[in-house]
Amino acid sequence: MSLTIRGYAAQNATTPLAPHNFTRRDPRPDDVVIDILYCGVCHSDLHQARDEWHNSIFPMVPGHEIIGKVSAVGQAVTAFKAGDMVGVGCMVDSCQHCASCAEDLEQYCDEGATWTYNALDRRDGMPTYGGYSERIVVSHKFVVRVPEKLDPKTAAPLLCAGITTYSPLRHWKVGKGTKVAVVGLGGLGHMGLKFAKAMGAEVALFTRSPGKEAEARRLGADQVILSTDPEQMKAVAEHFDIVLDTVPNEHDINPYVATLKRDGTHILVGLLGPLDPALHTVPLLLKRRAVVGSAIGGIKETQEMLDFCAEKGITCDTEIIPIQQINTAYERMLKSDVHYRFVIDMATL
Amino acid sequence: MSLTIRGYAAQNATTPLAPHNFTRRDPRPDDVVIDILYCGVCHSDLHQARDEWHNSIFPMVPGHEIIGKVSAVGQAVTAFKAGDMVGVGCMVDSCQHCASCAEDLEQYCDEGATWTYNALDRRDGMPTYGGYSERIVVSHKFVVRVPEKLDPKTAAPLLCAGITTYSPLRHWKVGKGTKVAVVGLGGLGHMGLKFAKAMGAEVALFTRSPGKEAEARRLGADQVILSTDPEQMKAVAEHFDIVLDTVPNEHDINPYVATLKRDGTHILVGLLGPLDPALHTVPLLLKRRAVVGSAIGGIKETQEMLDFCAEKGITCDTEIIPIQQINTAYERMLKSDVHYRFVIDMATL
Repeated sequence: MSLTIRGYAAQNATTPLAPHNFTRRDPRPDDVVIDILYCGVCHSDLHQARDEWHNSIFPMVPGHEIIGKVSAVGQAVTAFKAGDMVGVGCMVDSCQHCASCAEDLEQYCDEGATWTYNALDRRDGMPTYGGYSERIVVSHKFVVRVPEKLDPKTAAPLLCAGITTYSPLRHWKVGKGTKVAVVGLGGLGHMGLKFAKAMGAEVALFTRSPGKEAEARRLGADQVILSTDPEQMKAVAEHFDIVLDTVPNEHDINPYVATLKRDGTHILVGLLGPLDPALHTVPLLLKRRAVVGSAIGGIKETQEMLDFCAEKGITCDTEIIPIQQINTAYERMLKSDVHYRFVIDMATL
Repeated sequence: MSLTIRGYAAQNATTPLAPHNFTRRDPRPDDVVIDILYCGVCHSDLHQARDEWHNSIFPMVPGHEIIGKVSAVGQAVTAFKAGDMVGVGCMVDSCQHCASCAEDLEQYCDEGATWTYNALDRRDGMPTYGGYSERIVVSHKFVVRVPEKLDPKTAAPLLCAGITTYSPLRHWKVGKGTKVAVVGLGGLGHMGLKFAKAMGAEVALFTRSPGKEAEARRLGADQVILSTDPEQMKAVAEHFDIVLDTVPNEHDINPYVATLKRDGTHILVGLLGPLDPALHTVPLLLKRRAVVGSAIGGIKETQEMLDFCAEKGITCDTEIIPIQQINTAYERMLKSDVHYRFVIDMATL
């Protein structure tokens, strides 16, 4: 037996997303079946739907910021029951026995995590399909609980944009008085501001566009620095403990590294590619600075992040769209015309 | 009053080093006067004598791996007395009030440390002159004690080559079972092997030259990896906690980064320049790896390092030369024809 599912898919790299029926596996004993209510739209959905990473499996049903209600659970599942509001992020499985899995860091699984879509299920070898669909079947170990205080539709992007910024801020011990600067004000950047502020940090935004002052302050920034202005950059030389760099496209990180204090850390969470222009090493040696990368977060930490959001009243700023507008949404995303995340209302399917 | 000193100096960027008389300051109350016995020869001596960093002050007396005997102390000095065997490294002063100085990390002084040569004294503005000379006058705060168990002539290079490798291994918590790989087998690299081994690590050497196996093992390596052999590199993928990269010239660090485990750290201590070829970010994000820099070490840590060497019986492998051979030594250094550090016997002056 298997489940027939309605969704939206890309049939190849060049056609728009369109309605598509597909099957999901018959739930295993450890599976949770989730009726999807909302799904956030991540830049990586677009990259993969258009095969820009050259690893796409078609037809592809994107979506890894999933919120929904449990409709059924397998017999081995005790943590969830029908009716629970739950979330699924970027991963649906991992090896469960390597050092990283043992430390609740499934995103760094030695064998590679199983991604929510555009991957092959590690048990049956079948393609995984994401959240632009009415229902998903996922091992309970990769399901998180959505606290009652969180609005489900603004919670959806927390599963990727949220955890991707929350995890490194926690890992590099941001707390009261830490000086944090966020580079870029998109889906990730605006969450970085909110989290850093809620953790007690002094928060700044680096931006190349004037006029974002009021908006950045609303989101938690204490200071806005125009990175194109040498005087403003000079004024924050050796100032920050952490630079959280959310910019996904090629950019020069050297000017930001210069704003780090001794032992400061430049965290890359968005850039996938070579550092061009080249990273200069002298500023690393002279102040023992670090350039690091971080990828999403583990399942345990994702739950912790959702609970933190509920406690602190943190949500993602979203624009709700019907699934029929997904292709327009992709075009608008490319123009940064979104504040700050599209979320698909799956009832429109 | 001031002291007339005999030494060897470069008069400009293109002439060989030659005998040169100069004056040192009349000792201040907090100064120690040291009769120099031995001075190590660092690559940076050559770079600066030839103005390759475009900041040279001539005439220049190089040398910042200094061992000698105290001949006199100022009235405010209580920690040292005439006859003590002491050392001076890369720094002779710092602001003494910034956060880094307060944490015994004078090398990262906010105002910049005063370097032992090719710098201006921060109190009187006069040029500093290094250890290729018979005597030096240094604030007691920048003098370290040479333990009796250490042979003074093999101890000299510990003041730069030693502390430059010891400090990052300590800072990034190398200990029993840590997997450390050293890149490059020169003055710094051979000390990196010895220190990592003495700290309890499992130690590997990356080298581009076959035939260093026995030598590397003698120095502490448990494993030698030919970095030009893709098979050998593949066999150590995701294997090390720490890569200590001592190579001073431009090189591709990406193959070494790939040998780091999740949360592993690539430490640059020798390379001053852009990372070319470009550093790829995907391997940083996918395993939360770090690329960092580190510069020498603070005075307190330098003393700790010397005491550690005495306790563990660690010395630098040296070739003792008369001062008259310094120009030949520079040429041999350029050809890596030294195992592993030249040390000038200053009695030959």
